[in-house]
Amino acid sequence: MNQNDTGDKIYNLISELFPVNRSLTGEGVRETLTRLQDFIPLNIHEVKSGTEVYDWTVPPEWNIRDAWIKNEKGEKIVDFQESNLHVVGYSTPVDQTISLTELRAHLHSLPEQPQAIPYITSYYKERWGFCMSHEELANLPEGDYHVHIDSDLSNGVLNYADLVIPGELEEEIMFSTYICHPSMANNELSGPCVSTYLARWLMEAPRKYTYRFVFLPETIGSIVYLNQNITELKKKVKAGYVLTCCGDDRCYSFVESRLGNTLADRAARAVLDSLQPDFKHYSFLERGSDERQYCAPGVDLPFASVMRSKYGEYPEYHTSLDDLSLVSAAGLQGAYNVYQAIIELLEINDYYQINCLCEPQLGKRGLYPALSTKKSSEAVRDISSFIAYADGKHDLIDISQRIKVPVDHLYSIVYKLLEAELLNRD
Amino acid sequence: MNQNDTGDKIYNLISELFPVNRSLTGEGVRETLTRLQDFIPLNIHEVKSGTEVYDWTVPPEWNIRDAWIKNEKGEKIVDFQESNLHVVGYSTPVDQTISLTELRAHLHSLPEQPQAIPYITSYYKERWGFCMSHEELANLPEGDYHVHIDSDLSNGVLNYADLVIPGELEEEIMFSTYICHPSMANNELSGPCVSTYLARWLMEAPRKYTYRFVFLPETIGSIVYLNQNITELKKKVKAGYVLTCCGDDRCYSFVESRLGNTLADRAARAVLDSLQPDFKHYSFLERGSDERQYCAPGVDLPFASVMRSKYGEYPEYHTSLDDLSLVSAAGLQGAYNVYQAIIELLEINDYYQINCLCEPQLGKRGLYPALSTKKSSEAVRDISSFIAYADGKHDLIDISQRIKVPVDHLYSIVYKLLEAELLNRD
Amino acid sequence: MNQNDTGDKIYNLISELFPVNRSLTGEGVRETLTRLQDFIPLNIHEVKSGTEVYDWTVPPEWNIRDAWIKNEKGEKIVDFQESNLHVVGYSTPVDQTISLTELRAHLHSLPEQPQAIPYITSYYKERWGFCMSHEELANLPEGDYHVHIDSDLSNGVLNYADLVIPGELEEEIMFSTYICHPSMANNELSGPCVSTYLARWLMEAPRKYTYRFVFLPETIGSIVYLNQNITELKKKVKAGYVLTCCGDDRCYSFVESRLGNTLADRAARAVLDSLQPDFKHYSFLERGSDERQYCAPGVDLPFASVMRSKYGEYPEYHTSLDDLSLVSAAGLQGAYNVYQAIIELLEINDYYQINCLCEPQLGKRGLYPALSTKKSSEAVRDISSFIAYADGKHDLIDISQRIKVPVDHLYSIVYKLLEAELLNRD
Repeated sequence: MNQNDTGDKIYNLISELFPVNRSLTGEGVRETLTRLQDFIPLNIHEVKSGTEVYDWTVPPEWNIRDAWIKNEKGEKIVDFQESNLHVVGYSTPVDQTISLTELRAHLHSLPEQPQAIPYITSYYKERWGFCMSHEELANLPEGDYHVHIDSDLSNGVLNYADLVIPGELEEEIMFSTYICHPSMANNELSGPCVSTYLARWLMEAPRKYTYRFVFLPETIGSIVYLNQNITELKKKVKAGYVLTCCGDDRCYSFVESRLGNTLADRAARAVLDSLQPDFKHYSFLERGSDERQYCAPGVDLPFASVMRSKYGEYPEYHTSLDDLSLVSAAGLQGAYNVYQAIIELLEINDYYQINCLCEPQLGKRGLYPALSTKKSSEAVRDISSFIAYADGKHDLIDISQRIKVPVDHLYSIVYKLLEAELLNRD
Repeated sequence: MNQNDTGDKIYNLISELFPVNRSLTGEGVRETLTRLQDFIPLNIHEVKSGTEVYDWTVPPEWNIRDAWIKNEKGEKIVDFQESNLHVVGYSTPVDQTISLTELRAHLHSLPEQPQAIPYITSYYKERWGFCMSHEELANLPEGDYHVHIDSDLSNGVLNYADLVIPGELEEEIMFSTYICHPSMANNELSGPCVSTYLARWLMEAPRKYTYRFVFLPETIGSIVYLNQNITELKKKVKAGYVLTCCGDDRCYSFVESRLGNTLADRAARAVLDSLQPDFKHYSFLERGSDERQYCAPGVDLPFASVMRSKYGEYPEYHTSLDDLSLVSAAGLQGAYNVYQAIIELLEINDYYQINCLCEPQLGKRGLYPALSTKKSSEAVRDISSFIAYADGKHDLIDISQRIKVPVDHLYSIVYKLLEAELLNRD
Repeated sequence: MNQNDTGDKIYNLISELFPVNRSLTGEGVRETLTRLQDFIPLNIHEVKSGTEVYDWTVPPEWNIRDAWIKNEKGEKIVDFQESNLHVVGYSTPVDQTISLTELRAHLHSLPEQPQAIPYITSYYKERWGFCMSHEELANLPEGDYHVHIDSDLSNGVLNYADLVIPGELEEEIMFSTYICHPSMANNELSGPCVSTYLARWLMEAPRKYTYRFVFLPETIGSIVYLNQNITELKKKVKAGYVLTCCGDDRCYSFVESRLGNTLADRAARAVLDSLQPDFKHYSFLERGSDERQYCAPGVDLPFASVMRSKYGEYPEYHTSLDDLSLVSAAGLQGAYNVYQAIIELLEINDYYQINCLCEPQLGKRGLYPALSTKKSSEAVRDISSFIAYADGKHDLIDISQRIKVPVDHLYSIVYKLLEAELLNRD
């Protein structure tokens, strides 16, 4: 098994799902979730269009079969079959011939990235539109164009899925990822695909906590999920992460929670400090995904987010350049490894307390050299320091910071002291 | 109305009151307060000489009609009619002819500022003295001098004034200024004159809080006022400011309260950070006016002070150089504007709380663009950030700091969200 | 009396006790403690070998009469009579002739300090060994060697001593020092000898607190002492110090307590900030003596340590180079003076509260100049600042930091205000 073995599998899953046209609702969402059921036993739920959820209303279901623009020669100059980014998400149906001037009001491009097709949506106001590269848009000749969008907005459903993997405790660690983006790789097939493989691994792993994974359309999906589950989530969730943008090789990113000091924040920072100390730290002011709902006043769930290159911070973001060449098995493996390390930390983290007064005699247990020399104290400094702060008031993350030892270096100390029956948990 | 319209009026009032001989007590104080009654309905109070107030005793009333020094030729070389700074405040009467040597023990000058007449007082030890420029003092020829001070220290009264402008709430914002300094402009006619115009404006303005203005002699006056009103003040005052040194053009200054973290401090800092970010910040160790009493242990009122050039920090301080040329309409208007902005902030500041779970849907209220593009989120970043922290636990000032947006930029957001009925107050 | 008068006496006591062979237990410990009884009325205690104390067991008593290595010519090449560091502490008896190869497994030296004899012990595993300079070790010719250690490990006792000097209060200040090191001067005869002279001085000094001095073998001694006295100590001890490494001239060192914010820490830092502001600050991670037990979780006594050159930080540490030439009367006097200053601070430190509302009138008590001039306020700034924070919520150390005045500069202010009956204590 090579070191990117799981990264390779995640990359393959992304490649397979890449062409599917996902949106807030519709067939592409169901196709995606159904395929993921081949890997993990997701429960797929539906909520009817028009359902009121807090201050929001579930939008109609959108489906689209085809779309194109033809020039006067009948040539398709824009074709949905080539890239589902060509159509503004939630476009209403249209089939008419209009002048270039009229058409321009419905075209979107990125002058500063002339070769990229932008990703545009209009979920809550009815309109239609096409997206194309600025190069192509700038070169459109005068004339009439036949625009055709075979879509419909209908009373249907919004779909989402979840999976609860029970542990010893009712307390939960939660992961939320979104499945509403069409053909883009880092943002956003990397999120659900890394989540899928983390869930697969957890189902086989020994675990203290219960784990909850949710796959939903961004914003409206998390609002729906909170509306249906908030009491349970507020009671159970000890730490949560929005899993998104997990695929490229450039950097690691961290977005803290609203108040910045939850267990989710502390665990993520401790792991990144140890494994990827040059990670980029973003405050909650630079948030942008479902932590907006999970951390909202009154909801107050402990959610943070660890990513590779963060949404909004890399040039390919929300364009056709965020494609399969942007993500890699190594990049995905890196995100997967960090989340595994966070889970490993959450599982072992506790308010350990040394169970004798004064220092225990480590020597008689083979944990301290019997011969006291000028340098011997350095050799056992970490174990002594851990014991000094194992007072039941500092958790493992606190102790790591206090004694300036990476948190994962403390695990073997914890195991040795537990085995020696010198530590109480919690 | 030009932009210094109020500054002009304040300057004129300072000019009119400049010649009056004010001190802790006496006719000049009454004349000053009576003239201010033409602008605002001040209540003038009196306390008898000898009244015990905490650790202090109200001193005798001091009045002075004339004072001079004549040389052997009978020429007045020092004349109280030219500047009331020429006489040491609270000088006892004298009328005798003495040698230059004897006279020198009663003369005060500033060698380092040879053209300035210093401002000197001796409230609590009986003595007499004259102040003059060091240039003149140094050139006095040997000979006999006739010194004459026609003053008296008698059982009279100490006067002060106050004005309470009721608001919707019993809770108060308080302004304290002093009226005991003779002919000096920045310190101290700027204080009572800016206070007078702030009170005039507040009487006409809609207001949530009740506002209290007090005009009193420094130190003994605030001790008297506290002695008579402490229970009420401790119950009602939410923020207070000592209004002094509000007239020159050089800088803005801020003296924090004793513990540095009251609402008075926080509001002043938030306003200055936004409007005058290069202001000078002084700790309470550099205090020097009536905040010494208002912030004293056990009194503990929330008092800070916003000034232009701070007492003790500018070369003209406590000399005849602090005259009408040192202050300006623009300088006064600047201080007036900052205090208005502080009042505006205190009126709107509150622990707002968003009244729905999850983010409200701003789009349907026209507060969020319906078309989601790569950059649209930036356009509404401030309103989203405000909502994220409008949790009933952060007041507007806290939120401004959290989200790094100047506090006054948040007012329109508050108004919009209140209008949309999305916010609860307090 | 010269300025190092006490330092001279301490130096003499160190010189006298230097040759005695101390260890965790045995005749050398008793000889040392008995000699100290000539200075202070120490109570000498004993605990039987094999006694269980928390996680530890009191080791057998070790006594040694002689030890040497002879070469084939019968010449002593290593001789315990020349330096008791030559024998590994707690060596078992031996008397045999062995080859150089066999001998080497029992020899210890310091290649990086080729002229120093290292200090080595093996309290908890039975073995024997010799220590010598690396120069000598490296030059040993092949051949047979006669090794002889006339020692015994027997069921005996562990000795320690204490002295409680009663004060007005039952609350205690505690000093702990260790008496288990053989012939070394800074670490560790300086500790017990400075302690002895501090105790002598305190017995004659007026004192508010009760003072407790303990002299014990490091680690096992403090564990024994805690085992026997923990309830009383936890109830009474307000601040404690481990007194060690008090003899050289190089620097002052401070090791903070486990959480770093006890009265012991605060007092030590305030004194060092004033008297020796270039002292070296070590966190608890760099601890190494009995604060390991006193600060252990659940014990939680407020212990810090002020030293000259700290154990482990100077090259002569734990070698024969830590001899009488390393310490000096001036060095010892310096440590003694700092501890006296800490005691002086602890005695006067309190939560003083000014007993009138508003500022007291200092002028009528001669504490404030009667003539108010431009500069007079500076002259009384410190007393005013002290009064401003004498609110019963800041102790003297807090006030010193708040007002940026060295703590010992405040003592005369406290005395004046107490005399003027303006201050309440506690």
